[in-house]
Amino acid sequence: MWLRVSCNLAFDIEIPTPFILRLRPRSGAEQWIERDEFKITPNIKILEFTDDYGNLYQRFVAPVGKLSIYTSSDVKTSEFVDVNFDAPFIEIEQLPNDVLCYLLPSRYCESDRFNDLANSITLDKPAGYKQVFAIEEWLRTTISYIPGSSDYPISATEVYQKRSGVCRDLAHLGIALCRSLSIPARMVVGYLHQLQPMDMHAWFEAYVGGRWYTFDATQTGQKGGYVTVGYGLDAVDVAIFNQFGPVAHSLEQSINVVQIKN
Amino acid sequence: MWLRVSCNLAFDIEIPTPFILRLRPRSGAEQWIERDEFKITPNIKILEFTDDYGNLYQRFVAPVGKLSIYTSSDVKTSEFVDVNFDAPFIEIEQLPNDVLCYLLPSRYCESDRFNDLANSITLDKPAGYKQVFAIEEWLRTTISYIPGSSDYPISATEVYQKRSGVCRDLAHLGIALCRSLSIPARMVVGYLHQLQPMDMHAWFEAYVGGRWYTFDATQTGQKGGYVTVGYGLDAVDVAIFNQFGPVAHSLEQSINVVQIKN
Amino acid sequence: MWLRVSCNLAFDIEIPTPFILRLRPRSGAEQWIERDEFKITPNIKILEFTDDYGNLYQRFVAPVGKLSIYTSSDVKTSEFVDVNFDAPFIEIEQLPNDVLCYLLPSRYCESDRFNDLANSITLDKPAGYKQVFAIEEWLRTTISYIPGSSDYPISATEVYQKRSGVCRDLAHLGIALCRSLSIPARMVVGYLHQLQPMDMHAWFEAYVGGRWYTFDATQTGQKGGYVTVGYGLDAVDVAIFNQFGPVAHSLEQSINVVQIKN
Amino acid sequence: MWLRVSCNLAFDIEIPTPFILRLRPRSGAEQWIERDEFKITPNIKILEFTDDYGNLYQRFVAPVGKLSIYTSSDVKTSEFVDVNFDAPFIEIEQLPNDVLCYLLPSRYCESDRFNDLANSITLDKPAGYKQVFAIEEWLRTTISYIPGSSDYPISATEVYQKRSGVCRDLAHLGIALCRSLSIPARMVVGYLHQLQPMDMHAWFEAYVGGRWYTFDATQTGQKGGYVTVGYGLDAVDVAIFNQFGPVAHSLEQSINVVQIKN
Repeated sequence: MWLRVSCNLAFDIEIPTPFILRLRPRSGAEQWIERDEFKITPNIKILEFTDDYGNLYQRFVAPVGKLSIYTSSDVKTSEFVDVNFDAPFIEIEQLPNDVLCYLLPSRYCESDRFNDLANSITLDKPAGYKQVFAIEEWLRTTISYIPGSSDYPISATEVYQKRSGVCRDLAHLGIALCRSLSIPARMVVGYLHQLQPMDMHAWFEAYVGGRWYTFDATQTGQKGGYVTVGYGLDAVDVAIFNQFGPVAHSLEQSINVVQIKN
Repeated sequence: MWLRVSCNLAFDIEIPTPFILRLRPRSGAEQWIERDEFKITPNIKILEFTDDYGNLYQRFVAPVGKLSIYTSSDVKTSEFVDVNFDAPFIEIEQLPNDVLCYLLPSRYCESDRFNDLANSITLDKPAGYKQVFAIEEWLRTTISYIPGSSDYPISATEVYQKRSGVCRDLAHLGIALCRSLSIPARMVVGYLHQLQPMDMHAWFEAYVGGRWYTFDATQTGQKGGYVTVGYGLDAVDVAIFNQFGPVAHSLEQSINVVQIKN
Repeated sequence: MWLRVSCNLAFDIEIPTPFILRLRPRSGAEQWIERDEFKITPNIKILEFTDDYGNLYQRFVAPVGKLSIYTSSDVKTSEFVDVNFDAPFIEIEQLPNDVLCYLLPSRYCESDRFNDLANSITLDKPAGYKQVFAIEEWLRTTISYIPGSSDYPISATEVYQKRSGVCRDLAHLGIALCRSLSIPARMVVGYLHQLQPMDMHAWFEAYVGGRWYTFDATQTGQKGGYVTVGYGLDAVDVAIFNQFGPVAHSLEQSINVVQIKN
Repeated sequence: MWLRVSCNLAFDIEIPTPFILRLRPRSGAEQWIERDEFKITPNIKILEFTDDYGNLYQRFVAPVGKLSIYTSSDVKTSEFVDVNFDAPFIEIEQLPNDVLCYLLPSRYCESDRFNDLANSITLDKPAGYKQVFAIEEWLRTTISYIPGSSDYPISATEVYQKRSGVCRDLAHLGIALCRSLSIPARMVVGYLHQLQPMDMHAWFEAYVGGRWYTFDATQTGQKGGYVTVGYGLDAVDVAIFNQFGPVAHSLEQSINVVQIKN
């Protein structure tokens, strides 16, 4: 399916403020960007670079006044996410070197504290995809998904105590549970077709059977329509923007996803 | 200045043919891509990746039938290239690690054979920008620039014997001469505003005074309007496409560059 | 000064256990490894790789029985750490791309929560080296350094509440304070000459004046003798080993540092 | 088998001369470096870095006087090289991204000129390992291996005309032939046990069946005992040292390989 995704941000800048944006989707294994637009007003010097996860960043210093950021892309993505109940657990010694970092605890995913819980959730499941599926199911039934209920990231431990959270929170807990079973898991931030209410979205991927699979406890079925903007260990790596210095006043943040063809 | 650059390629594919394209400009230090479009027909699976020089590649297997490739970008670039006659030679021990590879001979730039010539061209010039400028001037007056005069790359040695060449040939010889003086030099392929006749273009950059500067013996003055598509050691690294197997019949190749705003 | 550093580890392995080691120092800007020895017994297949921070890792699966790891290196390092009170704060827009990741909060360094404290500690200090020096001094006088007092990492917030900690804890708090002032800071793990009691050591580096400087609140003066084994965002990235599965019984862990010549 | 390899170089330096060395073997998939020694006299500042092929480099400026370089390593390597006649050709679209560069022509391997020859050599062979084996056999019987017969690299075309060459020359021609069949091939430089006469050695690897296999037309049978020092596109990337400026007078170059245990 073909989606047109767009994001509009505006800020009122009171002192010159360094920004780092992570809003530009890249073509990759699962999506093709046929058209891409990225307008920043006023017309300032912008540098673009990639990190080691393959994310695309823009750096600039916003001058005093109104700052507008508009990005829009036409993306080919799948109507259904790939599912493979037979995908086996990959022994740590067989994992590619660049997947190993997704096994360790990170800022918001304290996987070192979830071993007992993960074992109880996945009891009797064969190691691999079915374990992650059980974790996703458990999240869906145990942690209430309440969009807009929190403004800043909390860690998996806090999510588990609260028993509710936004998409990012459910992903953090899912990632922590997977890693505690030695299954590599990573955070994904991007767009999702027909998300209610529309906003940037977060989900997670787990590495089983030799590749990454998509999991999202906020949705049901195998519905696709995902557009990846960034990968990371957790929310730290995939903020859609970072600003430095006094927080600029946000004037607007609107997200749009429409299907433009099959 | 803002340019809209576009490239149209079409091929008649007789057997399934792997392609690698290098046609998508990326935002970087010297240019900002505000809009980017990339259409490949028919609608096939395409993978995109970057290499260690920062170039963006697309990989796919073209099925039998007509293959169309259309790419178009709106780019902010400089009206004049940067010039700095005082930029000094950088001692080899001060060069960044990732610049060292541009000191060595490569497939089409046999810099190990040009030391005497480079010394005679740059006699009495202080080490640095003025040496490269003397090389550029020497190319301009010694090697006839004849667009369209050759179809496949020849090496700097052959260019020097022929005393004429296409843009790529002049760049190869310029690079070989710079490297023979221990000045890092690299090939650049991309678009140039008002190039006559319009085509993809090649020029070179030399590393002096701690950064890369643009040189182009096919042009005069300090005219800008360059849009970089790829960097490399020489033409091997920056072909706009590679195909593997029997050569597909090319149906069309058209390049367009227009100024869309100041 | 020339140091011979060595580490002896031994484990009793009850089931085949994947290990990742980070114990092999590499030559770099600040140290030269003239001799290096790395013995793992029994004689098993080991893979070595580097990560994006430049750390060197070894991967293997330890079979049932006794596992011995012995590493020893002869290293040239400085007798005194570099100090430069005039090194200025580098504006975020001037930072190299690969330094930016050291500005963000990480698992054990919640820099997003330390802005007020950092400002009060560095009040009246010019931005740059002197701010970091004030942080180091504050740590030295405020947080009691108690070697061996904790076995697993705690985060900067917890360290601040406890008012005491091991070397790793002081480094975590120092890093969090620097980052909250937009000064990049990173964790370093390695050896230190004449450390009392001898053990692996942790300290931090801050990026001011265009390069990294060493800070260590557990020591006084400008004493050198540091040998870096690994860099990272925090303790997550620089564990000297990770094992997966049931924790293997540690039989021995001994560290040795002796000066072998001037 | 365990080998102790060593290299002794000495130069008489008349003016300060930048050097880049590539002499330090690294542990990897096929070898484990248990002990490594690297002494450079006089005692100067040396920087070490890795390139994108994974090679380890040392940079320094040699002062006037005698320069001595001594490196020695104890390495575990295989007694026999891996052979797999059934390893199939990998379609270009299935090759990993980082293998693609080994398909293209390079300075000394003009693979674009060898298609007919490669086809005639491999006539009737199934695509894959058996093609490369046929190339190796053809080299062995067609190109005389004459150690010490040339001092500087010549290209595959020149080797083919000369019908004789040193190890490096045979590797260049083998690589060019493989690439012309769309089989990735790379240069390897290192040590070989029982090489006659003892010297640094060069051979090539071809990527078939999803991994790299060793080929060496200068040897017979499946004899192992190889120690890799560097990988590259061709001899340009894997010189054991580069010096810049007037060529320093070489006082000594001795290579030693002895077996120290099974």
